[in-house]
Amino acid sequence: MRASELATLRFTGGYWLQLETINREQTIPANFRQCTASGRFAAWNFDYRRGQPNGPHIFWDSDIAKYLEAGACSLAKFPDPELERTIDELIDRLVRAQAPDGYFNSYFQQIRPLDRWSNLRGDHELYCAGHLFEAAVAYFYATGKRKFLDAMCRYADLLVRSFGPGPEQCKGYPGHEELELALVKLAAATGCRDYLELARFFVDQRGTEPNYFQLEAGGKPSPVEVFNDLAYFQAHRPVREQSEATGHAVRAVYLYTAMADLARETGDQELTAACHRLWRSITREKMYVTGGIGSTHFGEAFAAPFDLPNEEAYAETCAAIGLIFFAWRMFLLEKKGEYLDVLERALYNAAAAGTSVEGTRFFYVNPLACQPGATLANGRHPEPRPDWFGCSCCPPNVARLRASVGQYFYELDDNRLWINLYNDSRWESSWRDRPLTIEQRTAYPWQGRIELLLHDWPEELTLSLRIPGYARSYRLLRNGGELPHALVDGFAVASAPCRAGDRLTLELEFEPQLLVADPRVRQDCGRVAVARGPLLYCLEEEDNGPGLNTLTLDPESPLQLREAPGLPAGTVMIEGQGFREPPFEPDAPLYRPWRPETPAGAVLRFVPYALWGNRRFGEMLLWVRLRG
Amino acid sequence: MRASELATLRFTGGYWLQLETINREQTIPANFRQCTASGRFAAWNFDYRRGQPNGPHIFWDSDIAKYLEAGACSLAKFPDPELERTIDELIDRLVRAQAPDGYFNSYFQQIRPLDRWSNLRGDHELYCAGHLFEAAVAYFYATGKRKFLDAMCRYADLLVRSFGPGPEQCKGYPGHEELELALVKLAAATGCRDYLELARFFVDQRGTEPNYFQLEAGGKPSPVEVFNDLAYFQAHRPVREQSEATGHAVRAVYLYTAMADLARETGDQELTAACHRLWRSITREKMYVTGGIGSTHFGEAFAAPFDLPNEEAYAETCAAIGLIFFAWRMFLLEKKGEYLDVLERALYNAAAAGTSVEGTRFFYVNPLACQPGATLANGRHPEPRPDWFGCSCCPPNVARLRASVGQYFYELDDNRLWINLYNDSRWESSWRDRPLTIEQRTAYPWQGRIELLLHDWPEELTLSLRIPGYARSYRLLRNGGELPHALVDGFAVASAPCRAGDRLTLELEFEPQLLVADPRVRQDCGRVAVARGPLLYCLEEEDNGPGLNTLTLDPESPLQLREAPGLPAGTVMIEGQGFREPPFEPDAPLYRPWRPETPAGAVLRFVPYALWGNRRFGEMLLWVRLRG
Repeated sequence: MRASELATLRFTGGYWLQLETINREQTIPANFRQCTASGRFAAWNFDYRRGQPNGPHIFWDSDIAKYLEAGACSLAKFPDPELERTIDELIDRLVRAQAPDGYFNSYFQQIRPLDRWSNLRGDHELYCAGHLFEAAVAYFYATGKRKFLDAMCRYADLLVRSFGPGPEQCKGYPGHEELELALVKLAAATGCRDYLELARFFVDQRGTEPNYFQLEAGGKPSPVEVFNDLAYFQAHRPVREQSEATGHAVRAVYLYTAMADLARETGDQELTAACHRLWRSITREKMYVTGGIGSTHFGEAFAAPFDLPNEEAYAETCAAIGLIFFAWRMFLLEKKGEYLDVLERALYNAAAAGTSVEGTRFFYVNPLACQPGATLANGRHPEPRPDWFGCSCCPPNVARLRASVGQYFYELDDNRLWINLYNDSRWESSWRDRPLTIEQRTAYPWQGRIELLLHDWPEELTLSLRIPGYARSYRLLRNGGELPHALVDGFAVASAPCRAGDRLTLELEFEPQLLVADPRVRQDCGRVAVARGPLLYCLEEEDNGPGLNTLTLDPESPLQLREAPGLPAGTVMIEGQGFREPPFEPDAPLYRPWRPETPAGAVLRFVPYALWGNRRFGEMLLWVRLRG
Repeated sequence: MRASELATLRFTGGYWLQLETINREQTIPANFRQCTASGRFAAWNFDYRRGQPNGPHIFWDSDIAKYLEAGACSLAKFPDPELERTIDELIDRLVRAQAPDGYFNSYFQQIRPLDRWSNLRGDHELYCAGHLFEAAVAYFYATGKRKFLDAMCRYADLLVRSFGPGPEQCKGYPGHEELELALVKLAAATGCRDYLELARFFVDQRGTEPNYFQLEAGGKPSPVEVFNDLAYFQAHRPVREQSEATGHAVRAVYLYTAMADLARETGDQELTAACHRLWRSITREKMYVTGGIGSTHFGEAFAAPFDLPNEEAYAETCAAIGLIFFAWRMFLLEKKGEYLDVLERALYNAAAAGTSVEGTRFFYVNPLACQPGATLANGRHPEPRPDWFGCSCCPPNVARLRASVGQYFYELDDNRLWINLYNDSRWESSWRDRPLTIEQRTAYPWQGRIELLLHDWPEELTLSLRIPGYARSYRLLRNGGELPHALVDGFAVASAPCRAGDRLTLELEFEPQLLVADPRVRQDCGRVAVARGPLLYCLEEEDNGPGLNTLTLDPESPLQLREAPGLPAGTVMIEGQGFREPPFEPDAPLYRPWRPETPAGAVLRFVPYALWGNRRFGEMLLWVRLRG
């Protein structure tokens, strides 16, 4: 659905009502508290004097913007005068401080007023602008108020005048992509094609010769080592010629999102082909089974194909969120379920694991194995989720994702409705000015049965229900009988008209599954991942004792469902049978000759990966060894 | 044997003659070329002017010193007028530049003349002194010339005056330990107890309160992050109270070596107990099966117990060399074979892998698995051995180790000869002024049969032959009949007198073995290491194709010996039977449901780990998966 229509979908229970409530009651207020305590909001007072503590930072505006966007999306569904006053007050500060020509940046205006756009590569200036534009659009959709939107249009108009192919215009583009996708949103909200054209300029200009970032740096190497690699910025060649997902993963997927946006808006086949190649590069070669991407700590970046370390995984929360954006745009470009399979995988796993169950603590990186005490690539040791980070992109990104997740549930086009995701919910929309009301009743993602009540349904509309790629089988009934349909690109497309009052029942095969990785992922050879529905599972020390890598799973043994202890009510635990290698004798040497041994039988207890690290912090392991 | 007696042992063939020759003809000259090309030797001209390229560096003196020591050890056995002239000329430069009070440091004297001993923690000043003392002792032993030794005694006398418990003396100690063990050597060479006392002061002062390094830093944090952790320097508590090997691994084992020296020299039981605890910490919890130590890149340091990553292993060559030193001193302290088992393990594996077969290229770090293209903890990718390093401690350390390895073969005490290591060789020594001549004939380490010809043998001397810990059985014959003996602490101690002319034959069980690691080493669970005699083996892509982690070894299948292709003549390859997981179908997704499959049979070809990376650079894997 359109981002402007968030209010049309109400979660009425289950998984997303729970997360939406935690997000509104805990995560968004936690972001407010942290933005206050860290000085981020104070930076918008524009009274910073050199030497004072808490000087504005180059990416602070983006954190505030994401907080504003999260708040706006929440307001769209849940009126909250206090939150709205808070946001209005921040908007007032912004508008007061905005330069006469439309420019706004709390860092550059206060700290380095003469340096505007002087270091596009490293200074996040256009990135902050993009997040502000996204927030302004969301606030306009939520409230109808134009003040923020108009202010950001003035800023965008300045960018339109300042950047472009003209002889007087700057030929640069964002060092951290984000503005491109934001301009597409701004164009959609305002109808102004100039913003779309500027997005296209940024995308097409990127990586062309002479390279803008190299010109800008004047041949001087950056002290930030990764900055010296153009591929870190996806600026090593024109984007249309790129085939491998490279560099900083968040930057990359934000760029690819805009590329897919532009391909859809313009019908550009060359850009579409590049999107396909990059999608394939990520999902066939560089994505964790959780939907996490950007496997290496070094540069928060994509590594070589199939190089997916588990304990050392970076898999930044924001990168998983960016992959959701990219997947959604690929789906809008081409209505195939495979894109939503990835979206759902990232949404329920990699992007979900970043936030604690109470919604106020966050992981920045999301490894697939954890050994407390181990030395990580940065020299530190694994730790529980902290409250906040110095570079705190992830917490507000989670907040805006969760406040806007409803937008991915349905998509309408001229003659078809795509039902993409499942949760207890009621959607009140319209099609050709006729009411369209659908109620979902389900315990998804804990159960695979979904009831769809078509309260209002225009008969000419074709119904398409997503059949997730993980479901090895399914049944689709209407009012108790089979619904005639064809399975096309991951969707059950009804081949008979539906009618208002119809009750559809989708039963997805929902048995626990064992997944294996392409053997080129050397880290996962001889191991399996346990999954059920969209959820990946993992072992935790809390349920299995220490030494998780001494456990092996018998792949032929039945997997049983249990209630998970110490996790939110309704959380399903999976129990499997396997073995545990015995410890060495006390005082044995570190290495000794192999001898055949009969390992002891063991019960392996798996909990959803998204919920790991919420009890006593200990070992965690997703890819478990298989008993050969 | 004493380090002064290197010339008494001649390798007459086999493994060590080959390495000794390569070392003399290739490695030592390569160090000379690199020290010349990098400006290290030029720094001893003492004509550096600020602004010129190739300014002296804080650790350059140590590289030159290790080159001098390697050259000296080589001269002890192989006269070489040109090499001796080169060394004499360098000594002349040193003596010319030495300060009137005895101080010498090419960096501080030229670059920061006012900063002497101002940053003991970080600046390697006492470390360089230690290496120079070692070199001076070795050159004195090799040539009898005193110029270098006397100069270094003047320097040591300055240190004796300057450091110590007295009211006017500095209470500091080396930031990079090394001087302590060097002072023990200098004391042995000169008979001067003051040097031993200074070593004891440094060792005992270390880590006491108030902490010298903290006082020196004046509370200011170091920009080198690891420097802010006193455990990095083993200075977090007094050494006598330490139980866990911590921090920078080379620093640690150089310190522990001196501790064991002092425990032996002084009979200090408390120090002996600390050495035992630290030895145990390393060998029971923190040592790779190769003898490599210091598993984490971060700080080149020991990680937590049992945290021994394979691909990300640091295992610096110098740290393995330092472990050899520590093991040797532990053996001198207490004549047990277990110390020599570790010495031999490190000598033939971790310390050996650092040098290419032709002797001119070097690894600084020694991982136990290699995947070209993978991103390592430092953001770089695995690469073949380069010629040299900016911080080039390892190449000259290898050179001095290989030039002096003979010292570890035999040890005499009042009534017993310990025969520790095996190689084709002739040893001409004496005991109580009576000749003692032993010839070894063996193809060790490729074969386990050793013949010992006791050409001259005083009958009162008790013979002890080391039975390596890896040998599950052995036979020991004299002139064709059983030699009566007792197996005590890893040595076959003859219980009947031997006589001149006796021919002893030791046959060590030498079948290939599979080793397993303590299951607390999570990285090695379900895997085995293949070993034969003292050598660890590994898989290389060259012999097995890519995807080494898709291979599993059948532990019950016989292991066959073969000639290794493309490696030095005589290198034994081991062939085992196992399986290879099939690749996914082309165009398959990255993850798919597990299904039972019959993997294809495969031959696994193992080559000595010490020789990996000498052919086409590709994948390498030591811990191979076991077919369960």
